[in-house]
Amino acid sequence: MEEIITMAHGSGGESTSRLISEVFAAEFSNEYLAGMEDASVVPVSSKIAMTTDSFVVTPYEYPGGNIGRLSVCGTVNDLLTSGAVPKYLTAGFILEEGLPISSLIRVVRSMAETAREAGVIIVTGDTKVIESASKDGGVMINTAGVGVITENAHCYKATQVKPGDVIILSGTLGEHHATILSRRMGLDNESLESDNAPLIDIVHNLEESGAAVHAIRDVTRGGLATVLNEYARAAGVQIVIKQDAIPVKKAVKDFCGILGLDPLYMGNEGKMTIAVDPADATKALEIIRGSKYGADAAIIGSVIAVPEEEKPALLLETSLGGNRIMGPLYGEGLPRIC
Amino acid sequence: MEEIITMAHGSGGESTSRLISEVFAAEFSNEYLAGMEDASVVPVSSKIAMTTDSFVVTPYEYPGGNIGRLSVCGTVNDLLTSGAVPKYLTAGFILEEGLPISSLIRVVRSMAETAREAGVIIVTGDTKVIESASKDGGVMINTAGVGVITENAHCYKATQVKPGDVIILSGTLGEHHATILSRRMGLDNESLESDNAPLIDIVHNLEESGAAVHAIRDVTRGGLATVLNEYARAAGVQIVIKQDAIPVKKAVKDFCGILGLDPLYMGNEGKMTIAVDPADATKALEIIRGSKYGADAAIIGSVIAVPEEEKPALLLETSLGGNRIMGPLYGEGLPRIC
Repeated sequence: MEEIITMAHGSGGESTSRLISEVFAAEFSNEYLAGMEDASVVPVSSKIAMTTDSFVVTPYEYPGGNIGRLSVCGTVNDLLTSGAVPKYLTAGFILEEGLPISSLIRVVRSMAETAREAGVIIVTGDTKVIESASKDGGVMINTAGVGVITENAHCYKATQVKPGDVIILSGTLGEHHATILSRRMGLDNESLESDNAPLIDIVHNLEESGAAVHAIRDVTRGGLATVLNEYARAAGVQIVIKQDAIPVKKAVKDFCGILGLDPLYMGNEGKMTIAVDPADATKALEIIRGSKYGADAAIIGSVIAVPEEEKPALLLETSLGGNRIMGPLYGEGLPRIC
Repeated sequence: MEEIITMAHGSGGESTSRLISEVFAAEFSNEYLAGMEDASVVPVSSKIAMTTDSFVVTPYEYPGGNIGRLSVCGTVNDLLTSGAVPKYLTAGFILEEGLPISSLIRVVRSMAETAREAGVIIVTGDTKVIESASKDGGVMINTAGVGVITENAHCYKATQVKPGDVIILSGTLGEHHATILSRRMGLDNESLESDNAPLIDIVHNLEESGAAVHAIRDVTRGGLATVLNEYARAAGVQIVIKQDAIPVKKAVKDFCGILGLDPLYMGNEGKMTIAVDPADATKALEIIRGSKYGADAAIIGSVIAVPEEEKPALLLETSLGGNRIMGPLYGEGLPRIC
């Protein structure tokens, strides 16, 4: 008979302790976790970056990944955008009663593998179990991350974006969002796969190259349009992107076409958008294309000063040549895609 | 009309951004959060402690506190047990659709007040919204914490507990658990109130005193019996506690009596148990009694070597004089008390 998560696993007693040693510690095994104290002590430099992200995606397993891989990628990518070297993660699990232990193990294993890929370690964790409306159970994960800011770390900030800057997108848009939506609709579209990935290599190689990168953001919930609106507002500029230059895979285009969705507003889990000095744009593009998960990178637009009597904004130059103002995502209720 | 949380608040778009600025940033306001980047950079010494805890208690507001206060206390107390000075918290919110904004504000405000009381700052956050089975909505919070390990920090470890050590409990048992259970049963017992509290003062004063403290643990899920079993196993000792010496408030005693519950297994959110060298036991007790939240502290037992052919264990000396082995909590399914 298959073992399932019961309320006892959340009690803090014997069952919790078995779950921790047999599932979490077995997969994450490292010198910091081994102490099994309530907090872990880890060495750092004199400045750290901190971030946190909760993951609630349903289904928690999907083509191309699962919530475990996602929870590492999301937090690692957030740390990267601050110029930090991602180092340590915490993992907080909220498990729904009824979750099969075998599913949890797949999720945890994937989390451990992704952590190794990203060069981070999970140093401390926590588990709670809650009642579930459905009988299959589910899993939610919070990962908080600490990254080290080295002495010669780059400082990326939305406020540093300036007129003339070139906007690069590290790859194709919309895969994660389309994959999750497709699954939630009960479709079994084999050509769709989540892009969930830790973008260590792209950011590290850019740093090494010395290219004058002014801002980096990962393009997650809210999509590219929301991130570029944040750049525009923070820096007091306009950003003009060309519709034809934005890479989108055919499967995503087809899916969006049928449902009337715009890839510019769709969530991704393995894409960065970068504002770089025009002198270094070509070099930066080549570096990203030569990096893991960066093969489809493209220059998609540039930054201009705000014309008189206009406001900071994102403008889309459509295939027909017209310019359209694209606001940030507003009030869209697409649940549990990340 | 009352504003409620809708799926749009979790979209990552405009509504999310309004929620963040009007609710979270308004309450937590500090120089690190002000940047509104995905990760925050904070100064630290060369070693830090990290911990994480998710809070899922229902009801999320209860006599004596709410999930916001709880989420700060839990993580601060975990950091304290590692010898660290608690410094920075991350806050990950999972909100259920339908949650009244006014309730969220009460929770967030309480979180901010407790952070100020504990001397920590919330440096970064995240918000997700999920569908809810009930129409009133709920809230779950993950807090991860970073504490600084100073050069002359004390090192507390369960493995350092040794025969002869005196066991001190910082106050009365069972209030949080009894309060939550009572509310979940629909009772309105005015004499029950959660003990949720950050125990900075107790630990700081003990450190300053130079008392030879070997281990400190906060007594949460699983209760005192589970923590003392962890001490016994980690250190390879037996711990003997006296039933008559364990402080329990009358309201909790009465509540437990009716339901057949044992305060030794009940969760607390503002209690520490301390193993201290016998030479310093009286001094340590006085210091705790003179500290905030420590007035009811008591010496409850001591540590002995494991007799031949016996195993590490927790023994309860009952009022009648007999000795009873108390295992860790096993398989109890009391949901959502923390």
